[in-house]
Amino acid sequence: MCGIIPPMVTPLKAQDELDHVGLERLIEHILSGCVHGLFILGTTGEAPSLSHRLRQEVISHTCQQVQGRVPVLVGITDTAFAESIAMADYAAEAGAQAVVLAPPYYFTAGQPELLEYLEHLVVKLPLPTFLYNMPSTTKLIFEPATIVKASTIDGVVGLKDSSGNMTYFHQLQRVLRNNQDFTLLVGPEELLAETILLGGHGGVNGGANLYPQLYVQLYNAAIQGDLEDVKKLQQKVIHVSTTLYGVGHFSSSYIKGLKCALSIKGICNDFMAEPFHRFRSPERQRIEAILSELDANW
Amino acid sequence: MCGIIPPMVTPLKAQDELDHVGLERLIEHILSGCVHGLFILGTTGEAPSLSHRLRQEVISHTCQQVQGRVPVLVGITDTAFAESIAMADYAAEAGAQAVVLAPPYYFTAGQPELLEYLEHLVVKLPLPTFLYNMPSTTKLIFEPATIVKASTIDGVVGLKDSSGNMTYFHQLQRVLRNNQDFTLLVGPEELLAETILLGGHGGVNGGANLYPQLYVQLYNAAIQGDLEDVKKLQQKVIHVSTTLYGVGHFSSSYIKGLKCALSIKGICNDFMAEPFHRFRSPERQRIEAILSELDANW
Amino acid sequence: MCGIIPPMVTPLKAQDELDHVGLERLIEHILSGCVHGLFILGTTGEAPSLSHRLRQEVISHTCQQVQGRVPVLVGITDTAFAESIAMADYAAEAGAQAVVLAPPYYFTAGQPELLEYLEHLVVKLPLPTFLYNMPSTTKLIFEPATIVKASTIDGVVGLKDSSGNMTYFHQLQRVLRNNQDFTLLVGPEELLAETILLGGHGGVNGGANLYPQLYVQLYNAAIQGDLEDVKKLQQKVIHVSTTLYGVGHFSSSYIKGLKCALSIKGICNDFMAEPFHRFRSPERQRIEAILSELDANW
Amino acid sequence: MCGIIPPMVTPLKAQDELDHVGLERLIEHILSGCVHGLFILGTTGEAPSLSHRLRQEVISHTCQQVQGRVPVLVGITDTAFAESIAMADYAAEAGAQAVVLAPPYYFTAGQPELLEYLEHLVVKLPLPTFLYNMPSTTKLIFEPATIVKASTIDGVVGLKDSSGNMTYFHQLQRVLRNNQDFTLLVGPEELLAETILLGGHGGVNGGANLYPQLYVQLYNAAIQGDLEDVKKLQQKVIHVSTTLYGVGHFSSSYIKGLKCALSIKGICNDFMAEPFHRFRSPERQRIEAILSELDANW
Repeated sequence: MCGIIPPMVTPLKAQDELDHVGLERLIEHILSGCVHGLFILGTTGEAPSLSHRLRQEVISHTCQQVQGRVPVLVGITDTAFAESIAMADYAAEAGAQAVVLAPPYYFTAGQPELLEYLEHLVVKLPLPTFLYNMPSTTKLIFEPATIVKASTIDGVVGLKDSSGNMTYFHQLQRVLRNNQDFTLLVGPEELLAETILLGGHGGVNGGANLYPQLYVQLYNAAIQGDLEDVKKLQQKVIHVSTTLYGVGHFSSSYIKGLKCALSIKGICNDFMAEPFHRFRSPERQRIEAILSELDANW
Repeated sequence: MCGIIPPMVTPLKAQDELDHVGLERLIEHILSGCVHGLFILGTTGEAPSLSHRLRQEVISHTCQQVQGRVPVLVGITDTAFAESIAMADYAAEAGAQAVVLAPPYYFTAGQPELLEYLEHLVVKLPLPTFLYNMPSTTKLIFEPATIVKASTIDGVVGLKDSSGNMTYFHQLQRVLRNNQDFTLLVGPEELLAETILLGGHGGVNGGANLYPQLYVQLYNAAIQGDLEDVKKLQQKVIHVSTTLYGVGHFSSSYIKGLKCALSIKGICNDFMAEPFHRFRSPERQRIEAILSELDANW
Repeated sequence: MCGIIPPMVTPLKAQDELDHVGLERLIEHILSGCVHGLFILGTTGEAPSLSHRLRQEVISHTCQQVQGRVPVLVGITDTAFAESIAMADYAAEAGAQAVVLAPPYYFTAGQPELLEYLEHLVVKLPLPTFLYNMPSTTKLIFEPATIVKASTIDGVVGLKDSSGNMTYFHQLQRVLRNNQDFTLLVGPEELLAETILLGGHGGVNGGANLYPQLYVQLYNAAIQGDLEDVKKLQQKVIHVSTTLYGVGHFSSSYIKGLKCALSIKGICNDFMAEPFHRFRSPERQRIEAILSELDANW
Repeated sequence: MCGIIPPMVTPLKAQDELDHVGLERLIEHILSGCVHGLFILGTTGEAPSLSHRLRQEVISHTCQQVQGRVPVLVGITDTAFAESIAMADYAAEAGAQAVVLAPPYYFTAGQPELLEYLEHLVVKLPLPTFLYNMPSTTKLIFEPATIVKASTIDGVVGLKDSSGNMTYFHQLQRVLRNNQDFTLLVGPEELLAETILLGGHGGVNGGANLYPQLYVQLYNAAIQGDLEDVKKLQQKVIHVSTTLYGVGHFSSSYIKGLKCALSIKGICNDFMAEPFHRFRSPERQRIEAILSELDANW
């Protein structure tokens, strides 16, 4: 499981109501870009904002629609131990290939407790587990020494790092250099190019909901060491990032911009789970203008 | 609903298993201190770490045991909108008197979104709602202007402030001075004395799990303006705080110390929900020594 | 040295130029309120933004003007060890009574290094030293255990706490309870009432530049345990705080509001040292309106 | 001014006393690595901890020793406006080629104030100015929009970014793409490879005090697009970073490790300016072991 594994947004029709048609269209749109996997119920998927019932609905419909064409990874992060296990069991039964686990995000555990938590939890999970480093929402990082120890737990197969901290990422690569089976994925799409050029294994990049091919092309160019192509495609990636995700003032601008763009393109609904709310008219118009400009320049 | 409303710890026998006997003993112990209410499923109750099933079990058993002797307040904070509503409905049916709501704690909403979230949610809740300011775990505060607007939502009756920031608390008192029905409670027990002396309405203080009478006495002394007694009782409160909560290095020391002490006193089990783990032998011995010293000096 | 010790703003005419006449008027205005001391070159005095030459000018002119009527405390905080010593020597020669020292604020020292720094520095200082806890600008706190050790260094006589964290303050009171000579002062004026009611020794409150008498009255009422008066005066203090310091969006609003108000009252110039800039017309008009309202209500 | 511009440590013999011989040896050692410039009085140079007199001594001795072989850049960051100007004037007279300026680091300015500060200050500086983004010590970042505006101020020629945030760096590259004369340098050496591969202009990397050639080789390999060499050299860079800078627990470990290693190699003294203190015996022995292992593997 390496390459481009888009973190899918969750199409919603209303509060606690899945947009089934949008979900199907979105999956087909993403898979048409030749991505290497699909990650559902992550941060971009607004998973913590969805009821457990709805999360299960997302899992079963996605697995049905994907039909094994690519691996499906399922976020099972939860503040409650038993709920994470239950979600992983559901994912396994639905046919998913792996689960993704960030630390509990209400209480902040120390590193020894975090390691103990992983030791207790992962053995109860029916699928291979990716750890998920996401300090901006969970308030803690997996320290490199913790990752080294966690990488020896049976079932832990990799890490998705969304810290945005490439020094940390390179330090992880160093301390894990003797564990070639451990997969290191990067979250922020702005960092995909350098991640792959310097030996990382893939990207879980939100923009791939909208432009899946772009990120796959960049991944391939970087794998092949084609620096000219990498630079050209990196320009596009940063262009998307500095425009589409920059409307509005809050940290939610990224997900809102993405959902709004998908809605404008007719792929799925832009309804957001609480506490977020979709862009209204002025912001939507700015997203429309940005999309026109992006499409015109490519 | 003012006065001392202890945030009850949740007695557990094992992962996802309630300590029923401990729960009953703990409730009777707390109520014997003449407290003014009982707050379950808050931070001290490790609510976010408990499965939804277990949370419901805590609600029903507590309401049965309390039998209306004091109001029961139930924490319904959740990252998922629908889950908060479901828990509030359950609490109402079980006979609770109010719910307590902190902001969703994975994504960080801006203040306008936070207000909109409250407007959408509170109208769906069957019980009076206390807001819960808890920035150390939720990563955001209810700004005073947001509280003023939220205080006009039908159903919002007060705020529990656990920020530890008394400047903020006094500013809230000021901007809410024309809304005498709005109840302002303080979380940290170290701040109970000054809160009451300067016009606040009560305390939701964790130490009252162990020494309920101490906090009630302090509350009463402050209400009566008996400064000499206030100072004496404040000394005891700070003595507890600087000793019992200071074993171990992490932010969880407070809850662990409390549960360990309750276990030593034979009131309930000290099992902790993941990602926390109960004190082992050396820490438990330190807590034993602290308890002996506390009991000897009173 | 206890009671109300206002942290004086530094009146400036232009960049790197002292407003001598304003300084004299301001000192007389403050002393007319029967304050117990005067603290110059603190945060409110914008000391880090002033050249060393100008800081010395402030010291000598203030000591000359005060003429021993109250103790003068001089901020000597600096990122460079030798500069702090030089400023303390200058203050001693000019006739000041004490110095005030926050940690170096560029690099963040660990607590053992911070203690070692104090041990090396304080012995070289010619005047009694107050420590100054100011985490919002220095990025670190003096942990209670560090304060206990530092309190045994010859020359360390007290602490000014501007953390705004009363739990911390009460913990300090507890761990220092056997050192009755150690003076604990509070920075934020919103916390003066509770500080004194619960055994603290004084306040270094910025609002006393403008309304020195108000804070002295509140201090006296609290010392005498007159709770009714305390509550009335506390209302005024919070009224000032929620209005005068709330114009503009940045952390500098407090100092700007204060200097602007002093300028409107004809006491001194409102020029600010870089990187701050005085309020322009719309903000100044709001401050004028606030002042009128404050004066009308008293 | 692009390429490798090492941020020189400041060799000290004692508090406020320069190690002249060590300084000369260090400069020759660094220049022997064919670096492209020398940056003195930055964070690695402990500049904020040095008296103004000592900073001037560092400037004049360095310029004399370098004799124009490479450009000398001088850090003039100060919380006081007038002191920054004075230091820049001194640097110009001593023969330096540019100055480097981080924001004032006691008070936190908003972005509009920060821009105004730059507009007021830079026009008074006699040398080309690099901005210096260093949020971990200054508590604020230069937002991309601020940089775009600042880049039009006469005299501003580039930015050194030590945020460690490559998403930010790439966004800067994007918004400055039409200003080809603006130089973007990266601070953390772990990020040098990707910075140059993706179009950045150079690195201000502390490890180049010790191994100047390593960073120059990496820079050259990246400029030439030789990915195999880049990966090999990057391995060494990360090896240094994960070992030499990881002794001890505090943020100062990086500078202490560097100075200790330089001392072991006989290049200069390891005395640290307060509030830091050089490694004592156990840590020094660990650094010796690390150095032996590093030297053995190359």
